[in-house]
Amino acid sequence: MKTLSRFNLHVALIHYPVIDKKGDTVASAVTNLDLHDIARAARTYGIRSFHVITPLEDQRGLAAKIVGHWTGGAGGDHNPKRREALELVKITASLDETRALIAGENGEPPAVVATCARRYPDAYGFDQLAERLETGSPHLIIFGTAWGLHPDLIEASEIILEPIGDHQGYNHLSVRCAAAIVMDRLLMSRS
Amino acid sequence: MKTLSRFNLHVALIHYPVIDKKGDTVASAVTNLDLHDIARAARTYGIRSFHVITPLEDQRGLAAKIVGHWTGGAGGDHNPKRREALELVKITASLDETRALIAGENGEPPAVVATCARRYPDAYGFDQLAERLETGSPHLIIFGTAWGLHPDLIEASEIILEPIGDHQGYNHLSVRCAAAIVMDRLLMSRS
Repeated sequence: MKTLSRFNLHVALIHYPVIDKKGDTVASAVTNLDLHDIARAARTYGIRSFHVITPLEDQRGLAAKIVGHWTGGAGGDHNPKRREALELVKITASLDETRALIAGENGEPPAVVATCARRYPDAYGFDQLAERLETGSPHLIIFGTAWGLHPDLIEASEIILEPIGDHQGYNHLSVRCAAAIVMDRLLMSRS
Repeated sequence: MKTLSRFNLHVALIHYPVIDKKGDTVASAVTNLDLHDIARAARTYGIRSFHVITPLEDQRGLAAKIVGHWTGGAGGDHNPKRREALELVKITASLDETRALIAGENGEPPAVVATCARRYPDAYGFDQLAERLETGSPHLIIFGTAWGLHPDLIEASEIILEPIGDHQGYNHLSVRCAAAIVMDRLLMSRS
């Protein structure tokens, strides 16, 4: 039943290392709605897997409880569509663990694509990334919670994606909305 | 400072009449994150105003309290970017009140554009709607909470927008993500 995009595309929501308002490194808390919203968008666009990444064990437990309610428990019977979405979620302790998991399923590790509201000089455009996805090799787009991904994580990524917009100089979307827009731009009429 | 899209575009989040899972008419509860996420997207894309519509007085009070915290209170000092977004919010009791408000500011009422996850035979495409927006006349896009806008409301609208996707047959985005994607498709590289 489950139909996937022909792109071998994965997404991840990073809770550490991210930055706070002052630019300090923090571990953010797992949020119920982030999981639901991004899982629903991922399912809508035929994304292969959605990784929720946090090094904090209790936060992984919380994420597992949320997901379990909808995939195994009463929530899934009540709302099978929500189950279909949350079945895409994998919970890991680190980006390395996520990369290893995707590598194990694909025979090669994914190229990591960082997202950021600031423009990096060598950033990929959306069309340019879509072209690379046409090769069928696995790619993992990472989104940061709080005030965004830590710069070290961005600069260590194979690819940096251009920001969604410098629209009117204001660029402060929620990570939920940003993730949905990125998937839409890459996969709308291309999947 | 505030820069707007050249489109005279407004958005509204409707809490009544919407339908529940069984298709029954309900009034849904105002949600903090809906207000924040849609206001932030509206500000990002240069939308003129964002109307939160509910006939329930206590729910309007709750919405006013959330907005007031960020526009007038401590929240605004703490996070001026959030204030800029939430300043777009207007709280009304009905779609008629919202239309009258926009008419008062523009000399003509807005054409109402309904959104729906199902495809109506005479639905507008995104490009087609963008062409109409080029005229500069006011338009109001309405989004439904819960399981979506009541069919009567959709059918009474001047325009019905095509669904975001029949991607892989799954089309269950959150209203927050759907609203962000609609704004992106209409205003990205057009504003």
